Amino acid sequence: MGWMADESGLDKCAANFVPLTPLSHLRRAAQVFANRTAVICGSHTATYSEYYDRVTRLASGLVALGVQPGDVVATVIPNVTAQIEASFGVPACGAVLNTINTRLDADTVAYIFDHGGAKVVLVDTQFLPVVEDALARMDGPAPTLIECPDVDAGFPATGRHQTYDALLASGSADFDWIMPQDEWESLSLNYTSGTTGRPKGVVYHHRGAYLMTMGTVVSWRMVLHPVFLAIVPLFHCNGWNHTWMMPLVGGTVVGCRDVSAKAIYDAIGDHGVTHFGGAPIVLNLIVNSAAADQRSFDHTVEVFTAGAPPAPATLAAIGQMGFNVTQVYGLTETYGHVTECLWNADWDPLPQDDRAAIQARQGVAFPMMERVNVVDDKNQQIAQDGTTQGEIVMQGNAVMKGYLKNPAATAEAFEGGHFHSGDIAVQHPDGYIQIADRKKDIIISGGENISSVEVESCLMAHPAVSLCAVVAKPDDKWGEVPCAFIELLDGHTATEAEVIAFARERLAGFKTPKAVVFQDLPKTSTGKIQKFELRQKARSL
Amino acid sequence: MGWMADESGLDKCAANFVPLTPLSHLRRAAQVFANRTAVICGSHTATYSEYYDRVTRLASGLVALGVQPGDVVATVIPNVTAQIEASFGVPACGAVLNTINTRLDADTVAYIFDHGGAKVVLVDTQFLPVVEDALARMDGPAPTLIECPDVDAGFPATGRHQTYDALLASGSADFDWIMPQDEWESLSLNYTSGTTGRPKGVVYHHRGAYLMTMGTVVSWRMVLHPVFLAIVPLFHCNGWNHTWMMPLVGGTVVGCRDVSAKAIYDAIGDHGVTHFGGAPIVLNLIVNSAAADQRSFDHTVEVFTAGAPPAPATLAAIGQMGFNVTQVYGLTETYGHVTECLWNADWDPLPQDDRAAIQARQGVAFPMMERVNVVDDKNQQIAQDGTTQGEIVMQGNAVMKGYLKNPAATAEAFEGGHFHSGDIAVQHPDGYIQIADRKKDIIISGGENISSVEVESCLMAHPAVSLCAVVAKPDDKWGEVPCAFIELLDGHTATEAEVIAFARERLAGFKTPKAVVFQDLPKTSTGKIQKFELRQKARSL
Repeated sequence: MGWMADESGLDKCAANFVPLTPLSHLRRAAQVFANRTAVICGSHTATYSEYYDRVTRLASGLVALGVQPGDVVATVIPNVTAQIEASFGVPACGAVLNTINTRLDADTVAYIFDHGGAKVVLVDTQFLPVVEDALARMDGPAPTLIECPDVDAGFPATGRHQTYDALLASGSADFDWIMPQDEWESLSLNYTSGTTGRPKGVVYHHRGAYLMTMGTVVSWRMVLHPVFLAIVPLFHCNGWNHTWMMPLVGGTVVGCRDVSAKAIYDAIGDHGVTHFGGAPIVLNLIVNSAAADQRSFDHTVEVFTAGAPPAPATLAAIGQMGFNVTQVYGLTETYGHVTECLWNADWDPLPQDDRAAIQARQGVAFPMMERVNVVDDKNQQIAQDGTTQGEIVMQGNAVMKGYLKNPAATAEAFEGGHFHSGDIAVQHPDGYIQIADRKKDIIISGGENISSVEVESCLMAHPAVSLCAVVAKPDDKWGEVPCAFIELLDGHTATEAEVIAFARERLAGFKTPKAVVFQDLPKTSTGKIQKFELRQKARSL
Repeated sequence: MGWMADESGLDKCAANFVPLTPLSHLRRAAQVFANRTAVICGSHTATYSEYYDRVTRLASGLVALGVQPGDVVATVIPNVTAQIEASFGVPACGAVLNTINTRLDADTVAYIFDHGGAKVVLVDTQFLPVVEDALARMDGPAPTLIECPDVDAGFPATGRHQTYDALLASGSADFDWIMPQDEWESLSLNYTSGTTGRPKGVVYHHRGAYLMTMGTVVSWRMVLHPVFLAIVPLFHCNGWNHTWMMPLVGGTVVGCRDVSAKAIYDAIGDHGVTHFGGAPIVLNLIVNSAAADQRSFDHTVEVFTAGAPPAPATLAAIGQMGFNVTQVYGLTETYGHVTECLWNADWDPLPQDDRAAIQARQGVAFPMMERVNVVDDKNQQIAQDGTTQGEIVMQGNAVMKGYLKNPAATAEAFEGGHFHSGDIAVQHPDGYIQIADRKKDIIISGGENISSVEVESCLMAHPAVSLCAVVAKPDDKWGEVPCAFIELLDGHTATEAEVIAFARERLAGFKTPKAVVFQDLPKTSTGKIQKFELRQKARSL
C-alpha cells in the first residue's frame, strides 16, 4: 500500500483523473487525424472528421428518440457502416451497446430484447423480417426500430420504418458527448451464443475496452495507420474491440458484409488491408480459395485467429501465402482475445511443421491481463509439463463486469477470485497454454480423457479433409468413443475406413474415431462449429 | 452515466479489476520474454529473468532494511544498472521512488531528504561526497545509505558503506512483490528543478505511469523489442517513464553514465539502439560531433526531444544523419512528454526548412491525455490562428497527484480543473501547439511581448552559433530589452555587432538583441539552460 505518510491535497481531481473509455480515442482522432480515412465500406468512405460528425449525429438522434444514459440500444447489423458507427455513437450518448447476432432466430432475439430491455434497435434491412417477428413475440415493451438500408448490397429501404440516414440527419453535429463519469459504467452488452439454455448477457465496462485497445496495439505489432478489415462480426465481443482501437492508431476500418476469400483478397488489393481477425474457418477460406479470387500483394498481412484451435496443417499452408497468423484466445466474457501465441525468434529455424504446431498454442497473457493460469479442481496451478490438464482461469482488466441480471452465474464464473473459462488446457514448460478441449467437449472413453482437438488436428492433416469436428458418441462398452464429422475439399474423396486407418497410424487406438460421417458442418455466425448438433446426431448413429 | 437499470452482481472483484501499475509489465516480461536481453550497462547484461530476479532481491533487501509500504527510498545515481533496477525494485516493496538529481548541491539534497523523508538512499560512489555532506546538514533522521559502486566507470567501493551488491545478495529471489491495492497509490516523488525557491515534490500515481507507458508505445511507433538508450536522466520525470515501458514491449534498456556523441554512436553501433530521448542539447552534440566519433548504421533511430524547443536549424541537420526526431513536450508534473509533434504525411513534400519549422512545434496530445488546450486569463480557449498567445493547460491521466505537503501549490496548479503548465503558446489552425515561451521567460519591451524562443531560433541559424539563450535585460526606456548569450562552434568566431546585424535582418527591430555575450551557457543536468543565472548577469551588464 504505497500511501505516503502525508497525502494531503493529493486526491483525484478533474485535472489528473479522466475515466478510461474508448470514446476518448475517437475524440482525439477527430482532432489529430482529422483528414485521414477512418471508414471504408462499399461506396461509403469517411475521414475521421466526418466519422466523428456522423457518430455525434447518431448519439444526438438517439437522445431525441428518448434514449437516456444507461439505456440499452441494440443493433442487428452485419459489419457495415451503421454497425461500425454504432460502436461509438451508442456509448457517446451514455447508452449501452447491445449488438445482436444476425443469425439468431426470432424467438431468441425476442428473449434478448426482453432481457436486455433495449429502448431502440438499429436493424439492417436484410434482417428486418426476423426482427419484426421478434418484436411481435416480445413480452415487454418493444424497442423503437430504426431501419439501416444497404443499397450497395441490394437492400434498399422498405419504407416501413424511420431510416438510419434520417436519424443522423435529425441529429446535431454539435451534440456534446455524454462521457462516463466512472470508468466502471457499462459500455456494452453481448449475449453468449448459449448452446444450452438461454444466452447470458455479458456486460463490459469502459475501462476494460480502453485497456483492451491499448494492449492489442502492442501485441498486434501495430504502428500508426493500419488498415483493418472487419471480418470478426461486431456482434461478437464487439469485434474483439478492434473498431474501438482504430482511432487510437489513426487506422482505417474496412467494412465487410459477407466474408469470402474474394472479399478478403479484394480488400487487400484495393485498400491495402494490413490486419484482420477471424476464426480458423476464415483461414481455410483463404487456403482453399480459387486462384481467380486471389490477388497479389507485397506486404505481410497480420492475422489474429481465434474461436477454435486452428489445425497445424492450415497454419502451415497460409504462412506461405503472405499472411502472418498469430493464434489468440479468449471468450465473450474477456472482451475477445486475452492470450496470444507470442512468437519467439528462437523458433524461426524450426521445420515448418514444428513451427505450425507451436502456432496452434494459445500462448501467454496479453499486456492488459494480469494472470492467465491453468489450475486443478482445487484452484492450484498445475504442473507446466505439456501433459497435465486443468482449467484456464484469468485475472485482469479485460474481464467482464458479470452477467446481466444473473448474480448467481456471475458468482460462479468468478469463484475463487478468477474468471473460470471452462476450457481445459495443458501448460508447456515455457508457460504457453494449449487448449485440450472445452470442458464439455472432452470425450471420456474407458476412463481416459480424449481431447477432441487433438483428434481433429490429426484428421486435418489428411489431404482430402477441408474441415472436421470430433465429438463423443455413446458406447455401451467404453462409455464414449470419438466420432468424426468431415467436410471434404472440392474434388476430393475419402472413405470411412481410409480415414480411420489414417488416424490409427497417428493416434493411440482409444483416440481413433470409431465412426466417420462426411457432411457439411453446422456453424455459428462466427465460424464456430456447433458441436451440440453433431453430438445429437452421433447419438442416433 | 452508463449505469444500467439493474447492475446487481456487476461490481469490481479480484477477477475483473487489477490496479494499473508499471510493475505488471515486468512481472509479465519475466515470463513471456524470460530469455531476452533486458538491460545492458557497461559490462553488465541481464535477461528479463535475471532482471526480475535482481529487482526482487532489491525489494526484499529494502524490506530487510525496514522499508515499509509508503516509505520513501531515494537514489542519487546516474543512468546505470542500480538506477534502472530501482525503477522497479523500490515500488516492488510498496515504497515510493525518489530519484534525486546528481548535480544538486548538498544543501538542496539535505532539504529533499528532510522534506521527502527518505528511509534509505542508494548512492553512486561518485556522488558519495555530496550525499555524505547532505546527511550531515539534515534536520531530521538520516536515511540509511547504500553505496552503488561502478567499477567499469572507475568508481570502486569505498568500504565506508553497505554496497548495493551486498544488499541484493542479502535479499530473497522468492520475495512476493507488494503490488498496489489502489492504482492511486504513490509510485514516485520527483523534485522540480526549482529555479526560484525550494524545489517542489511532484508525486506520481501508479495509474499514470502505466497509462504513460501504453500511450508512449503508440506515439513512438514502437513494435516489439526496441533497443532503448537511457540518455534522459532517470531522475528527471523517471526518464519520461521509459524504463517502465520497456518490459511492456520486451525491449532492451542500454544504460548511459555520461552522455557524449561517441557514447551515443557506440551504443547504436554496438547494441543496435533504435530509440532514445534527449534535450535539444543532445541533438547538438550529434550534429556537431567529430567524424571520428561517428559510426555508420543502416536503420533509422527514433528520437524524442523535449525540454526546450529545438532550433529548426538543428532539426534540419540531424534529420539528414539517420535520426528521425519528434518534438515532444511536457513537464515534471506530467510524467514527462504529453504532447507530440505528430507527423502528417502531407508535409513530406515541403522544403526541408519548412518541415523543420513544423517539427519545432510541440504538437498535439498523446493518447493517454484527454485534453491539451491553450487558454486565456479567463480559462477560455484562445483563437487557433498561430498568433494569439495563451497558457497551455491539460487534463489527463498522466498528470501528477500534486505537490507533496503543499496543498496550496497543488490547488493553484489545478485551478479551474486543469493543470496549468506556466508555458505560453500559440495554437495553429490544425490544433498544433507551439510554445512561445515560459511565462517567466517572456520579454516585455515597450509593452510588446517578445518570445525569447523566437529570437533564439533566429540566432541558431547563424553559421557560427552552437547554442544560445535570450533573456530580458532591464532597460530604462523600454522596460526590458532582449540580451543574447551565445556559445560558438569550435573554430568559429563572431562579433556582437555582426550577430545583431544578422538578427536585425530577420526580426522586427524591437525583437533584436541589444547586447550579445559570448560564453559557455550554464545548464541543468537535463540540458536545460539556466536562464535565471543569465538573467542575473544581464542585469549587471
